[in-house]
Amino acid sequence: MIPTITAFASSPDRGRGQARDMRVRWALEEVGQPYDVRLVSFSEMKQPAHLVLHPFGQIPTFEDGDLTLFESGAIVLHIAERHDGLLPGEAKARARAITWMFAALSTLEPPIVDLGMAMLFERDKSWYEARLPVLRDRVRVRLGELSVRLGDADWLDGAFSAGDLLMVTVLRRLNASGLLDEYPDISAYVARGEARPAFKRAFDAQLAVFTAASTGR
Amino acid sequence: MIPTITAFASSPDRGRGQARDMRVRWALEEVGQPYDVRLVSFSEMKQPAHLVLHPFGQIPTFEDGDLTLFESGAIVLHIAERHDGLLPGEAKARARAITWMFAALSTLEPPIVDLGMAMLFERDKSWYEARLPVLRDRVRVRLGELSVRLGDADWLDGAFSAGDLLMVTVLRRLNASGLLDEYPDISAYVARGEARPAFKRAFDAQLAVFTAASTGR
Repeated sequence: MIPTITAFASSPDRGRGQARDMRVRWALEEVGQPYDVRLVSFSEMKQPAHLVLHPFGQIPTFEDGDLTLFESGAIVLHIAERHDGLLPGEAKARARAITWMFAALSTLEPPIVDLGMAMLFERDKSWYEARLPVLRDRVRVRLGELSVRLGDADWLDGAFSAGDLLMVTVLRRLNASGLLDEYPDISAYVARGEARPAFKRAFDAQLAVFTAASTGR
Repeated sequence: MIPTITAFASSPDRGRGQARDMRVRWALEEVGQPYDVRLVSFSEMKQPAHLVLHPFGQIPTFEDGDLTLFESGAIVLHIAERHDGLLPGEAKARARAITWMFAALSTLEPPIVDLGMAMLFERDKSWYEARLPVLRDRVRVRLGELSVRLGDADWLDGAFSAGDLLMVTVLRRLNASGLLDEYPDISAYVARGEARPAFKRAFDAQLAVFTAASTGR
């Protein structure tokens, strides 16, 4: 029995791997766990059959036998706890790696999503030009702090972990902003993540969904 | 040896228990773990001695022997994993409770913080009146979904867990918005959390810090 995840039938990111199913796909690829994917449309996500799985009507979900999880962070942690390869075995190093998972989702992602949302949905608003620099500066503060902590290390705390996996996927959401170009060390960190064979397999799998959908299969 | 956490020397919430040390205090009280508190000023938070503990210059941090953690979610999970009382013992129920921890921080908290930030920092902006209803509606969507899932249960998934602890602290950040009044079931859920003896002890402890600071001790 292999787990089933959900993903967008038609991803708004047009196959750039910025939807949150990418995190779960990547984690599953890192640990060598095969999985099935069930695609859901935007309207299906808000219907009862999906809301039973995900009370907030989003993707991804994770079903394994009679266990159902949602929230990409929780799913990645669940996978990391049950397989080798995404969390250190030593207890303290493991707690620190989990700290980076939360840092990616709680400290980095919110200002990055705010910027992305404004770029998508507020371009026509009277305040867009005034707010944009504020939002960009808020992201810069976090990138600057992250850069200092990363220093010349390859990964955030020792070996590659689920903390790096989530952080790289969060940072990739900045691709359209140009902000990563201002931080060559962080760009290189993201590139190291993207160069991992498991990332590539996950990326290709989500891209194949988009390609199939856009060519009518 | 008891752990040490950091908290604001002068909390911007004026003792209402909305700063993130409250989550860690509450978790430690739930499991009966004594702790020390080191207070830090806003300028100290951005200085090297604190940045070693917390790369993003925030509170809370958690030090236990030679282990240092940051991110309130990660600290609460660390406490919950090492003591009874905050996570179910059964593996699937445990994974679901952890899912609610991530849901609180990743799905509920960002729109709630956005609303709070706008109410604090954008009141004088030309766009405030236009943006405010959008931000409030974004929170309402999540509260509505949460209300449906909660139904007539006391807690989100079985017994009180670290998921409820984080969710209640996140929802309490809405106190100034009036939005909780629109969802009596969610207000009652928050009140159930606040009625727990461990919550009260944690709340009183953080309030004592504010009271002492504001009266010059």
